[in-house]
Amino acid sequence: MKVAVGIDIGGTNIVWGFVDQQGVVQAQGNFLTADFSTPAEFVRTTSNAINEVIQNNSDFQLSGIGIGAPNGNYFHGTIEDPPNLVWNGIIPIRQMFEGFFDLPVCLTNDANAAAIGEMQFGAAKGLNDFVIITLGTGLGSGFVANGNLIYGHDGFAGELGHTIVEIDGRKCGCGRRGCLETYASATGIVRTAKIMLEKHSGVSLLSELDHITSKNIAVCAEKGDELALQIFDYTAKKLGFSLANTIAISSPEAIILFGGLANAGKLILEPTQRYMEQNLLSLFKNKVKLLLSQVPEKNAAILGAAALVWKTESNNTFVKTST
Amino acid sequence: MKVAVGIDIGGTNIVWGFVDQQGVVQAQGNFLTADFSTPAEFVRTTSNAINEVIQNNSDFQLSGIGIGAPNGNYFHGTIEDPPNLVWNGIIPIRQMFEGFFDLPVCLTNDANAAAIGEMQFGAAKGLNDFVIITLGTGLGSGFVANGNLIYGHDGFAGELGHTIVEIDGRKCGCGRRGCLETYASATGIVRTAKIMLEKHSGVSLLSELDHITSKNIAVCAEKGDELALQIFDYTAKKLGFSLANTIAISSPEAIILFGGLANAGKLILEPTQRYMEQNLLSLFKNKVKLLLSQVPEKNAAILGAAALVWKTESNNTFVKTST
Repeated sequence: MKVAVGIDIGGTNIVWGFVDQQGVVQAQGNFLTADFSTPAEFVRTTSNAINEVIQNNSDFQLSGIGIGAPNGNYFHGTIEDPPNLVWNGIIPIRQMFEGFFDLPVCLTNDANAAAIGEMQFGAAKGLNDFVIITLGTGLGSGFVANGNLIYGHDGFAGELGHTIVEIDGRKCGCGRRGCLETYASATGIVRTAKIMLEKHSGVSLLSELDHITSKNIAVCAEKGDELALQIFDYTAKKLGFSLANTIAISSPEAIILFGGLANAGKLILEPTQRYMEQNLLSLFKNKVKLLLSQVPEKNAAILGAAALVWKTESNNTFVKTST
Repeated sequence: MKVAVGIDIGGTNIVWGFVDQQGVVQAQGNFLTADFSTPAEFVRTTSNAINEVIQNNSDFQLSGIGIGAPNGNYFHGTIEDPPNLVWNGIIPIRQMFEGFFDLPVCLTNDANAAAIGEMQFGAAKGLNDFVIITLGTGLGSGFVANGNLIYGHDGFAGELGHTIVEIDGRKCGCGRRGCLETYASATGIVRTAKIMLEKHSGVSLLSELDHITSKNIAVCAEKGDELALQIFDYTAKKLGFSLANTIAISSPEAIILFGGLANAGKLILEPTQRYMEQNLLSLFKNKVKLLLSQVPEKNAAILGAAALVWKTESNNTFVKTST
C-alpha cells in the first residue's frame, strides 16, 4: 500500500501519521512539543517512531514525508523563526529528516498544508483556483492558482492575515497595526467581544462568562444573544471586506474557511458571505463559493502534510537539500 | 523566421505587428478603433492586412496571433462588455480570427499582455513571481506566480485597481467607492490635483495650467513645485499601501510599474517604494524590487500580445474555440 507520512508541528502538539492515497490514516502518534528542547531530539524521536511503523507494516510503500509547521518554507526546507515554538532561528528540518530517510521530504507552513489537504481530500477537490483561510489563533491563508500553491519567490506568500484592513487599527503581534488577523481569528473575535461587552449597556449571556473564547461566543450566538450576534457580524464585516479585495486579485472559484472560528459554521459563514458580496466588483458577484472545510479537523493537519507528498510527487517538484 | 502577430485593441487605437522571438517588430500597422462600427469589420480588415504581410514575406513562419484587449478573457477567447470600446456585449474575438487563420489565436486583457511582454522582453526576464501594474486611465494589474499568469477560475483575476483602499472613498467608474484606481492612475492623480489645488492657499505652478494632466503634474514636480510633489506623495501613499498588502498575498520578487503615470519615473517610484516598505510585514521588508517597465512603451502593447503566443506555445496551453 502506497502511503505518505504527514507530520504537523504545532505550538502545543506534534502529530504524525501514515496516510494512504484515499486519505485514510493507517497509523499515527503524537508528542507534546514542549517535550523536545531541541529540534534534533524531535527529529530523532519521530524518525524512530516512523521506522517502527515501517518495520511492523511490510506492505507499506512509503512515498515520502510531508511536514506542516509555522513559518515552514517549502523552497528552503527550513522552519524560520517560528512564532509559537520554543525552537529559535532557522531550523533545517528537511535536511535533518533526510539524514534519517532516503526519501523525498517536503515542508510548508500549516495553512499551505491545509490547502493541499483540502484539494486532495476535502472541499477543494477538482478545483484549480481557490483560497483557504485558517481561522485559528491567527489567520493563515493558502492560495492555489492554476492548480498549484502560490509560494511566492521566497516561499512566504499567503500572509492574508497580515494585510492591513484598518489603518491605525488594532495592535498586531507582528508589530504593526490593523492586520486582518487582529479582527478575524479566534483571538480577534475575543478582542472584539471584550471591547463590545465593555461598551454594552443591555443584558448579554456573555457578561455571565468567566472566560470569553471564540467557542463560547458562538454558543451564546446560537442561543440568540444579540451582542454575540453583533460580535460575529463585526468579525464577518472585516473578513468579508478583505475577501472581496482578495477575489479581485486572484478570482478563485471558492474560498474555504477552516479552523477554530470556522467551527462556528453558518454564524460566521453567512454574514461573511453577505459582506463579501456587498463589497465585490460586479464582475465577481454571485460567482465565488464561500465554503466550510470538509477535511475532518481531527486529522486535517496530518492529511494536509501527507497530501503535500502526493502533490509534490505528481508535480515532480521535490527539492532535495544540497549538501 | 519565426514570428507572432500581436494585436492591441485600445479605446482609441488598434495597433498590430509581426514580432520575432527577439522582440523586434518586423512589420506593423494601426487603425483608429472608431473606424470600425462592428467587431466583424475590424477582424476582416486586420486579417486582410496580416495576410498581405504574410504574402510579401515568404520567410515568415507565423506561430499564432495574440490579442490584448480591455476585458479580454483568456479562457473564453471573448471580449466581455469592454468599458472603453464602442462594441458592446460579448464578442467572440478568438473564434472570429480563427475563421480567417488556421493558427492558434489567444486573447487576454491588456495588463496581462503587458505582464507577458515584460517577462519575455523586459524587466521581468527570468522572474517566476512578479506583478505588473499599469497606471493608465485606470489601474490594471497582471499577477505571475510559478512562471504563469494568474487568470483565476473565470479568466478575470488581476483587478487590483478595483480593490477598495478607502472605505466610502472616491466614487469609482465601477459604481463602488474607494477603489485603488480612483487614487493611483493617470486620472486618479488628476482628481487628487484638483482637490488639493482647491484647498491650496500658497503659490503653485499648477494654478497656471489650463488643463491638468498627469504629465503636466509631473512637469511641475520636476521643477520642484511643492504642491505637485505633495500630489505625487499622496498618490504614492495609496499605491504603496496597496502594494504592501499585495506582497503579503503573493510575495513577488518584483513589482513593475508601466504606463502613463509610470512615465513620471522616480517621482512616483521613490515615494511609492517608501510607503510600500513602511507598510510591509517585516518578513518582506527590503526584499521586493519596485521597478519601471523596460519594454519600450511605443511597442509594448504589440510585444505583449505577441509574447502571449510564445508563452502559450511553450506552455502548450492553446485553447481552440469548440464549434
